[in-house]
Amino acid sequence: MVWEENSIMARRGVARGEAGLTHELTEDRQGVYHYVYGPYAEPVLRIRPGDIVVAETRDAFEGVIKTADDKPSELLHMPFLNPQCGPIAVEGAEKGDVLCVRIHSIKPRGPQPVGTTALISEFGGLVGTMQTAMLNQPLPEIVRKLEVTEDGIRFSPRITLPYEPFIGTLGVSPEIEAVSSLQPDYWGGNMDLPDVGPGAILYFPVHHKDAYLYLGDCHATQGDGELCGVAVEIASTTTVQVDLIKGWQIHWPRLENERMITAIGSARPLEDAARIAYRELVRWLADFGFEEIDAYFLLTQAGKVRLGNMVDPKYTIGASISKAYLSQN
Amino acid sequence: MVWEENSIMARRGVARGEAGLTHELTEDRQGVYHYVYGPYAEPVLRIRPGDIVVAETRDAFEGVIKTADDKPSELLHMPFLNPQCGPIAVEGAEKGDVLCVRIHSIKPRGPQPVGTTALISEFGGLVGTMQTAMLNQPLPEIVRKLEVTEDGIRFSPRITLPYEPFIGTLGVSPEIEAVSSLQPDYWGGNMDLPDVGPGAILYFPVHHKDAYLYLGDCHATQGDGELCGVAVEIASTTTVQVDLIKGWQIHWPRLENERMITAIGSARPLEDAARIAYRELVRWLADFGFEEIDAYFLLTQAGKVRLGNMVDPKYTIGASISKAYLSQN
Amino acid sequence: MVWEENSIMARRGVARGEAGLTHELTEDRQGVYHYVYGPYAEPVLRIRPGDIVVAETRDAFEGVIKTADDKPSELLHMPFLNPQCGPIAVEGAEKGDVLCVRIHSIKPRGPQPVGTTALISEFGGLVGTMQTAMLNQPLPEIVRKLEVTEDGIRFSPRITLPYEPFIGTLGVSPEIEAVSSLQPDYWGGNMDLPDVGPGAILYFPVHHKDAYLYLGDCHATQGDGELCGVAVEIASTTTVQVDLIKGWQIHWPRLENERMITAIGSARPLEDAARIAYRELVRWLADFGFEEIDAYFLLTQAGKVRLGNMVDPKYTIGASISKAYLSQN
Amino acid sequence: MVWEENSIMARRGVARGEAGLTHELTEDRQGVYHYVYGPYAEPVLRIRPGDIVVAETRDAFEGVIKTADDKPSELLHMPFLNPQCGPIAVEGAEKGDVLCVRIHSIKPRGPQPVGTTALISEFGGLVGTMQTAMLNQPLPEIVRKLEVTEDGIRFSPRITLPYEPFIGTLGVSPEIEAVSSLQPDYWGGNMDLPDVGPGAILYFPVHHKDAYLYLGDCHATQGDGELCGVAVEIASTTTVQVDLIKGWQIHWPRLENERMITAIGSARPLEDAARIAYRELVRWLADFGFEEIDAYFLLTQAGKVRLGNMVDPKYTIGASISKAYLSQN
Repeated sequence: MVWEENSIMARRGVARGEAGLTHELTEDRQGVYHYVYGPYAEPVLRIRPGDIVVAETRDAFEGVIKTADDKPSELLHMPFLNPQCGPIAVEGAEKGDVLCVRIHSIKPRGPQPVGTTALISEFGGLVGTMQTAMLNQPLPEIVRKLEVTEDGIRFSPRITLPYEPFIGTLGVSPEIEAVSSLQPDYWGGNMDLPDVGPGAILYFPVHHKDAYLYLGDCHATQGDGELCGVAVEIASTTTVQVDLIKGWQIHWPRLENERMITAIGSARPLEDAARIAYRELVRWLADFGFEEIDAYFLLTQAGKVRLGNMVDPKYTIGASISKAYLSQN
Repeated sequence: MVWEENSIMARRGVARGEAGLTHELTEDRQGVYHYVYGPYAEPVLRIRPGDIVVAETRDAFEGVIKTADDKPSELLHMPFLNPQCGPIAVEGAEKGDVLCVRIHSIKPRGPQPVGTTALISEFGGLVGTMQTAMLNQPLPEIVRKLEVTEDGIRFSPRITLPYEPFIGTLGVSPEIEAVSSLQPDYWGGNMDLPDVGPGAILYFPVHHKDAYLYLGDCHATQGDGELCGVAVEIASTTTVQVDLIKGWQIHWPRLENERMITAIGSARPLEDAARIAYRELVRWLADFGFEEIDAYFLLTQAGKVRLGNMVDPKYTIGASISKAYLSQN
Repeated sequence: MVWEENSIMARRGVARGEAGLTHELTEDRQGVYHYVYGPYAEPVLRIRPGDIVVAETRDAFEGVIKTADDKPSELLHMPFLNPQCGPIAVEGAEKGDVLCVRIHSIKPRGPQPVGTTALISEFGGLVGTMQTAMLNQPLPEIVRKLEVTEDGIRFSPRITLPYEPFIGTLGVSPEIEAVSSLQPDYWGGNMDLPDVGPGAILYFPVHHKDAYLYLGDCHATQGDGELCGVAVEIASTTTVQVDLIKGWQIHWPRLENERMITAIGSARPLEDAARIAYRELVRWLADFGFEEIDAYFLLTQAGKVRLGNMVDPKYTIGASISKAYLSQN
Repeated sequence: MVWEENSIMARRGVARGEAGLTHELTEDRQGVYHYVYGPYAEPVLRIRPGDIVVAETRDAFEGVIKTADDKPSELLHMPFLNPQCGPIAVEGAEKGDVLCVRIHSIKPRGPQPVGTTALISEFGGLVGTMQTAMLNQPLPEIVRKLEVTEDGIRFSPRITLPYEPFIGTLGVSPEIEAVSSLQPDYWGGNMDLPDVGPGAILYFPVHHKDAYLYLGDCHATQGDGELCGVAVEIASTTTVQVDLIKGWQIHWPRLENERMITAIGSARPLEDAARIAYRELVRWLADFGFEEIDAYFLLTQAGKVRLGNMVDPKYTIGASISKAYLSQN
């Protein structure tokens, strides 16, 4: 038996692990991509719990950076960055439910070199930014185009990085807000957490009727923190299966894979992201029979932390515990 | 000559300091109040530069907390907090302009005790919150209703606080985002800066056609930081005059009064709010003939900092310099 | 009656406001200046509660920056910065007591131009630093020498700043630690809070037998935050009166002047400094008959915040309340 | 060939990987343990590069918490916490050198249950603390005593945690400061980074003649962040080999093991710890032939972050890169 059959999604989802229809969300069907997570756009697709979506995502720069000679400052125009597929309406989803997104696969799409990374002025983890405002001169703009296949990423003549793709930006609409797809928050968004790849199931709290799922910003790989602010950005064909859990109150995104469960927090400063993630995980452990204090002690001794981004408007941290301990309590 | 005649608004505004029409934005005319700063609502009013608006603002709890026995947790429902008047469309305003808002007066409105303060669970500067997530038990919910007149605020039988009103939440719409009126940011919003009172002129960068001015959340008084998260919240009749400056590039709200100029930053952690405010002020000083390094030195020796809120989704700081030094360079 | 006769120091101090002997702590008598606040140095002076000390402080660079052509990077050597007078042993002081320091006067000392400010590499509020580590190029090193008299500071040909001197670094020894005089903390140290000037009384928690008072780093003036990291640094003749309060438990420095009482916190991020300061002030208000919740509400409506430094290893904030409200409760 | 033969320590150390004498640093020989990292204590041992030290460390509470009924608040007295072995003088070490510490083994020592964890008032990652000051009531004091052997840790009747020991506090003396062993900083100290275990080699910048090595605070295991502030604290017999590298300028601790190299930063807020660690790693990569921009890009795509503590006076992060990429550039 594969682990997914025993996942929370399979056990508690409306579709009980059964696959529904498959929907092709091509570039054509998507038409206009979106730059906010919000309830004001018309759904591009209506699906039912259990359905599968095959989405053609664009890269975070919407493909406008084509060569190493391109100047991001001339081609990129805030706030029209990080284009998203969606919103996808999920029938039956209501405020208070949980939307499940199981990631099947992420494949690079488009002409080579399909991968893009870059230094962008006043953006990144080791430079002054619009928020951490400095008087220092910015670093030069630099673009790197990288060949990306499922066999690997040609980082340099000598270094090939493994293809470890994930969805950088994924989540649902807030209730009445429409927030830039550059930002991660309690609804998901631009978390840039490398665990959000094939084999993972994400759980998001629903705030708006039909949930309004958005996704985009796939990365061929990324280090912890997405240090310069730009991973190996790719256009992709991404396949996910969607389900719905009624009556599960969660406040922040959660993730499950074969080995562990993870609560995800996004905030500044970074310790607040860690606090959110760990507190959500403490609360989640109640579902597995742990008293709050026991959960706090267990995470002190066995919790794992993964840094998503440390460059976006909010920083993201995932706090995890091995499933090995959950069945033992 | 009153100082306003020499203000930036009077000198550079389209209306050149001349008053236009006066518009009454009553509760009836406003109808539905708004909980986001965004471009998706229909304007309640269209005005021209120089026009005056007399707005009936509601208090941050929309008046539902009527007695000291009311329970905020039962009566308040996120995200429907901090109701705003507007949006007010200002003719001719375009992305890249600056909207000027001169505050004439703020008068308490409604049946006494009109003032409300409260302890709200997981909200405030000295408690664990949704962001600074803690396992400690929250403080008890407590409501205080206070009599507020223009003569003072009856804080307790022995303590009367001066009536020093200001607009807690004021600003313009982002370009494509619609963000909770609980948050301050580069468009203004919930800054809770006590300097934003009668006699001040605010300058906001315009991001959307017609600017879309919002305002609300008046405070009869407030300490620096709005420590418990709730000032003396009042419904008000607030009178402002609006103007427009073409061709002035600013990135964050600015304020001018008789004595000083102020740049306002909002961010977490708090030092980033201070960095933003001070860097904007460094840049502003270029308008007065200061080289960047001289501005940096002058602010080091003579800059003043005021803390707005330290409780909202972002914290707010105003950095100021006395006008006395500006004419001397 | 001058207000000091009713100060906490005068009412509760061992000396009851009576002046004792006056001690001249000249450069000669001091001999070697110190770069840490700690218990491992021999006292240069032993005094009794009520005694007055006239100390010759050196500037933060120990006078080695003599002209605008000097290069800080060649002349300054970490950790030998911010030289301090002391330690001064105060007879009878024990762990758990409070040391009182009333500041009488601060006069500039030495050959003109006695004032120094500078841009120092990787130091300051608007640049990448050793802690907020960046890859950006540092700003150039720049030194300004300024004429300082009690009539004012010649900042530029057109700008004269008022002489508003204060002690940048002041405090007592930790119990077993010896910490750089560049750092502020619960024992005082490099707080750079402009309120610590003539007319103020400081209260420090004693951690070591005889308290071991240190002081230095006088500033002719300074803006809030000490933005570039270097105020108008001067050598001074500083006169303080010292007293001792037995049986007063405080955890952080406190300040009293004619108008207000202030609790001082130092931490990173800056909001933690504000939290410390405000929580200490909440607790202090218990001495004036306020319940904790009432104190929290009062500070929400009437508390004032002053930013000391935002550049040192910890940032400093003073939270204050007007004395006008203390007698009314 | 074992990897250590090709380690930086073996290649560049004065002892060239050769083992020298073995020194037993028993409890008796240590006598008084230390609570500060500083230059003011007399060395308990003088060793030469290449020598091995077998140290009997005490647990962080110096063994005074013996049963689950003990009250930490009655038994623990700040600042006398986290007792350290040392200082160990290393002959030939001078400011500007690097001290190498290769960790051979860590064995639990003392009567069972030798492991201790606890909730301590106002200490921990999910509670208000002395720094993140809150008005909420603290959590109750709770002590857990745990049986610890090299086969595992009996966390609860059903959960056995693997024995994954490491040294919580390890480093060298600052030049003139003496800082609490509760704090991590550029000299090492209380980093609580789980990678600091058997098989790791640590590199510390030397600031004081003879380096003055301290160590203590061993943990039988710990989750990322040491969430409640107290890992599974044990007394131990810890064996390390020491060496010295002349002429290697580093600013923060570094770590090497078979798989990766790691730079370690400690600061608040947590993003500053990450910035320090990643910037040091960028600089380290120059030793392997990387241009700064290439290093920045490589770490963006392949850097790994591990959270040490998020509870100490400074937080600690290790930033790593796989050795697989270093030989390829």
